[in-house]
Amino acid sequence: MNKSSDIDTIRGIVPPMVTPLLAEDKLDLKSLEKIIGHLIRGGVHGIFILGSTGEAPSLSYKLRYQLVEETCRLVGGRVPVLVGITDTSFVESVNLANFAKTKNATAVVLAPPYYFPAGQPELVEYVGHLVSEISIPLFLYNMPGFTKVYYEIETVQALSENRRIIGIKDSSGNMIYYHRLLQLFKGRKDFSVLMGTEALLAESILLGGHGGVPGGANLFPKLFVDLYDAAQRKDLNEVRKLQDKVMKLSSTIYNVGKFGSSFLKGIKCGLAYRGLIRNDFVAEPFHAFREREKRIISNYMKNILADYE
Amino acid sequence: MNKSSDIDTIRGIVPPMVTPLLAEDKLDLKSLEKIIGHLIRGGVHGIFILGSTGEAPSLSYKLRYQLVEETCRLVGGRVPVLVGITDTSFVESVNLANFAKTKNATAVVLAPPYYFPAGQPELVEYVGHLVSEISIPLFLYNMPGFTKVYYEIETVQALSENRRIIGIKDSSGNMIYYHRLLQLFKGRKDFSVLMGTEALLAESILLGGHGGVPGGANLFPKLFVDLYDAAQRKDLNEVRKLQDKVMKLSSTIYNVGKFGSSFLKGIKCGLAYRGLIRNDFVAEPFHAFREREKRIISNYMKNILADYE
Amino acid sequence: MNKSSDIDTIRGIVPPMVTPLLAEDKLDLKSLEKIIGHLIRGGVHGIFILGSTGEAPSLSYKLRYQLVEETCRLVGGRVPVLVGITDTSFVESVNLANFAKTKNATAVVLAPPYYFPAGQPELVEYVGHLVSEISIPLFLYNMPGFTKVYYEIETVQALSENRRIIGIKDSSGNMIYYHRLLQLFKGRKDFSVLMGTEALLAESILLGGHGGVPGGANLFPKLFVDLYDAAQRKDLNEVRKLQDKVMKLSSTIYNVGKFGSSFLKGIKCGLAYRGLIRNDFVAEPFHAFREREKRIISNYMKNILADYE
Amino acid sequence: MNKSSDIDTIRGIVPPMVTPLLAEDKLDLKSLEKIIGHLIRGGVHGIFILGSTGEAPSLSYKLRYQLVEETCRLVGGRVPVLVGITDTSFVESVNLANFAKTKNATAVVLAPPYYFPAGQPELVEYVGHLVSEISIPLFLYNMPGFTKVYYEIETVQALSENRRIIGIKDSSGNMIYYHRLLQLFKGRKDFSVLMGTEALLAESILLGGHGGVPGGANLFPKLFVDLYDAAQRKDLNEVRKLQDKVMKLSSTIYNVGKFGSSFLKGIKCGLAYRGLIRNDFVAEPFHAFREREKRIISNYMKNILADYE
Repeated sequence: MNKSSDIDTIRGIVPPMVTPLLAEDKLDLKSLEKIIGHLIRGGVHGIFILGSTGEAPSLSYKLRYQLVEETCRLVGGRVPVLVGITDTSFVESVNLANFAKTKNATAVVLAPPYYFPAGQPELVEYVGHLVSEISIPLFLYNMPGFTKVYYEIETVQALSENRRIIGIKDSSGNMIYYHRLLQLFKGRKDFSVLMGTEALLAESILLGGHGGVPGGANLFPKLFVDLYDAAQRKDLNEVRKLQDKVMKLSSTIYNVGKFGSSFLKGIKCGLAYRGLIRNDFVAEPFHAFREREKRIISNYMKNILADYE
Repeated sequence: MNKSSDIDTIRGIVPPMVTPLLAEDKLDLKSLEKIIGHLIRGGVHGIFILGSTGEAPSLSYKLRYQLVEETCRLVGGRVPVLVGITDTSFVESVNLANFAKTKNATAVVLAPPYYFPAGQPELVEYVGHLVSEISIPLFLYNMPGFTKVYYEIETVQALSENRRIIGIKDSSGNMIYYHRLLQLFKGRKDFSVLMGTEALLAESILLGGHGGVPGGANLFPKLFVDLYDAAQRKDLNEVRKLQDKVMKLSSTIYNVGKFGSSFLKGIKCGLAYRGLIRNDFVAEPFHAFREREKRIISNYMKNILADYE
Repeated sequence: MNKSSDIDTIRGIVPPMVTPLLAEDKLDLKSLEKIIGHLIRGGVHGIFILGSTGEAPSLSYKLRYQLVEETCRLVGGRVPVLVGITDTSFVESVNLANFAKTKNATAVVLAPPYYFPAGQPELVEYVGHLVSEISIPLFLYNMPGFTKVYYEIETVQALSENRRIIGIKDSSGNMIYYHRLLQLFKGRKDFSVLMGTEALLAESILLGGHGGVPGGANLFPKLFVDLYDAAQRKDLNEVRKLQDKVMKLSSTIYNVGKFGSSFLKGIKCGLAYRGLIRNDFVAEPFHAFREREKRIISNYMKNILADYE
Repeated sequence: MNKSSDIDTIRGIVPPMVTPLLAEDKLDLKSLEKIIGHLIRGGVHGIFILGSTGEAPSLSYKLRYQLVEETCRLVGGRVPVLVGITDTSFVESVNLANFAKTKNATAVVLAPPYYFPAGQPELVEYVGHLVSEISIPLFLYNMPGFTKVYYEIETVQALSENRRIIGIKDSSGNMIYYHRLLQLFKGRKDFSVLMGTEALLAESILLGGHGGVPGGANLFPKLFVDLYDAAQRKDLNEVRKLQDKVMKLSSTIYNVGKFGSSFLKGIKCGLAYRGLIRNDFVAEPFHAFREREKRIISNYMKNILADYE
């Protein structure tokens, strides 16, 4: 397994870890330890904190710093730790990156600023400037559903010439875009192209991708590690079987609420059901599922666990 | 003129003030004083800081707090001061609102959280919860181009039952939506419906709106105050004449760059041309216009000033 | 009043007439005569057939030709007749335009082809080519909600140099775009800029527009003619009063169904309530309102008529 | 090989055949014969005419009928023939479907009406009504980029209960949607789920899809047949190799022009280069590439052919 000390490429399953909360702005340290253990036992190849599934933009800055410090301490170099530093404020991104570096995080992860939509040449300048002010490797994070802005292919190509930019996580859900990335980086051993959309993980690995950042791996890390391994060894029958299980999550756990927040609420509710977090508290502007939805999730979890394990 | 101490409704022209910067994360205090004087001499009815034109999301938190403190001090109660508290983090919004209250700001202004798109019922809960944690009046800020999420008409209606929510600024550019707001609040003397899109200011006042938040009023406060006054007294010939001048800004000053940032860069560049700010520094992810664009803006400004004054 | 024989500019209220149907693909000739009489008695300045409200794209070609012939015959030159020729097929547009010419229609109206989205230079070539194959004046029809493609300002400017293109109807709902059109054609007496969105008619006339194509004028032609006249004579109090009535249509008659088709179904249902058409049949992919919705519309109509007349 | 006489499921590669034109509204019969031969020799499992690549919406009705008749005659039952009947007019769709039936076409293909966006319940009624008026099997065609409207999963599920609806072609480019379709129809031997986006063909077959409708198969039918076969027999190394060739088309032949029409123009230009059509005429609102672009395409074709064959 990679150690954070000698990492230069990120491969495999890197779950975007949820942030366990006891209340608004209150980190649940006990659950943090528990969920980190659960992920590492599940065989994950890295942990990504302060992403969308980690509710980073909803957390106070104080809490974000605390989470970086505690996670790095608890992981203790067993797997790489990636830290999301996406922000609308350049200064805040730089400060958090430099803090993550002092805590021995492996890399930082940057989506485009998500209030003002930057033009692509503006984005190239922005990322270039930011990289020049930090001394920790950087991953790009393509997440146009939330940021409105793509890292367009030509932009990724331009930025990738900077060797301190070591990969991209694509959560666009746009598989054509992902194929273009694969074409672009076919010859580059030192640049990782990770899939952020879990329903597309199987095919991304089958066709040459390097790993994934599936939110569902919070609940079922081994499922996704097994899928990754099966795809790596080209065992198509096993891949199809596991892909069916992954798709089942979409039609059950992630599909209970009415809004875009259903994915996040479902995962936290499922984690609470499994006892992996003490409280399924979700930060504003959302809130945890209420009783009715919790019962539905519980039933789904019961069936899925009976099936999986 | 309204004093911040006895304000309960906001009417008239409330420019979204730019944030004068000397460098990344460095407030230009001298220019701040100058531009506040310029606006108040121009007859504006209030000043709105930390909006989109104020680049709020691009500023560090330290700088945001500094700007609130200094602006409230410099304005000294001559006109109402509105403070943008829009944030993806509930806690940060509440903290800034409570700080603004201690500095005697008049009201705070809140767009929906702009990373995760909230469903409308989630948005109602979120705003309600936030209002319960602050003791300063709140304005809604509809800005779907940047936040992805509308305050839908039914949501505004539900929220407006809370008398601590005193108005809405609509920057959607959707005049049909604005007409629906006007219908909704026709009987409400204590609720302000302000127009955020300057090209639509004339008609919004002619048809019953209460004022506007035009970015161009940074450069030409009197132009917009005159337009507001002419529309108030139903002088349609004068309104058309001034509307032509407003439209001319769009096809000149705001139309020099290639990206969405052209509006902001053009205003800061024009302010520097007029000597109202010392430096047209624009925070990341943008940057000030380069020489070529500056020359074009200078020419536009020369012609416009010759025409206006 | 303009006669179709000597028309070169179109001004005032030109309702987009509904197509009265007895069944799928069966024109209701008796109702056609009745509704034409109703519109002309209401004072309209022209009649536009085969637009969106006329369900043109849903009708068979046979029926479209029949409608052109019968309408031109029944109107008999009392007001200009404009004929929509928008199509995905160039040949079909040309054929219909040339047929309309032989029936003495005044002008034809053309939105961009609505299946393949053309680039703007492609659109300029397409319209130029089409105009060269017809000998009847042409109106542009900007309807991006249905066609996906704008006539961008530069495109309108380029096309308007061809003097056989005599105006534009803008149904984008984008009032900023409309203001740009007004700026562009300020000096052109021979080019009409009409407003297609009825909620924006009042302000468009107040600020210099030439008329409108309001769907609601099928039901209440006089309301819109009065609004146009009041705005023309700058009677702002009367404009506001009538604008309130127009807005009331949006929140009642057009707001009964759940889908985009509510506007059309509401108008046809209201016309049937008034006895102006015998059957509120709506062509596929839609259908007329069912009993429940019809009762709601009837109640709205009763109240509105009591109020109006 | 399937015969059109006994077909009830469509599997494999079914190219959306281009329509060879000599001029606006003039079918090139000689080239039609040549291209049909080329496709059948390439091993395709069916031919789809009057789709988007076939420019159906741009053709006159006369030409559409002629194309159906001639294609059915020339194919002569060697492979199934699918006929696009998508239209904004219900009556025209029904008429064309019934004509196709008399010419022994295998099935018809229907995207949602593309002017007025129907709500999903409206769409279910519309398709149900249409199927009841024709006696030839029907394929659904999901093409939201052009029609604005998805066949949502629940809609497909509802419609698929009608056994005369025998499959769906998905050209959304949305691989998550496609996976949902695969889940939905896992147990249905009599319902085909075809991939319309050629860059996603490989993975769609690897993960259980039934075939594809790749536009590039006009140029290189054998490439796509080979890819289908390799994916069917789970030869992942071969799949990756062929997928690289498919992706190369996107970055070369389809990528020469500036607009959405580049795909179509590139294919027709490439076919003319290969001598498979006499004229690369493209119907309005587009036009064939001009000399500069033709030279670029010729160079690309030369390199690709050297590589392929």
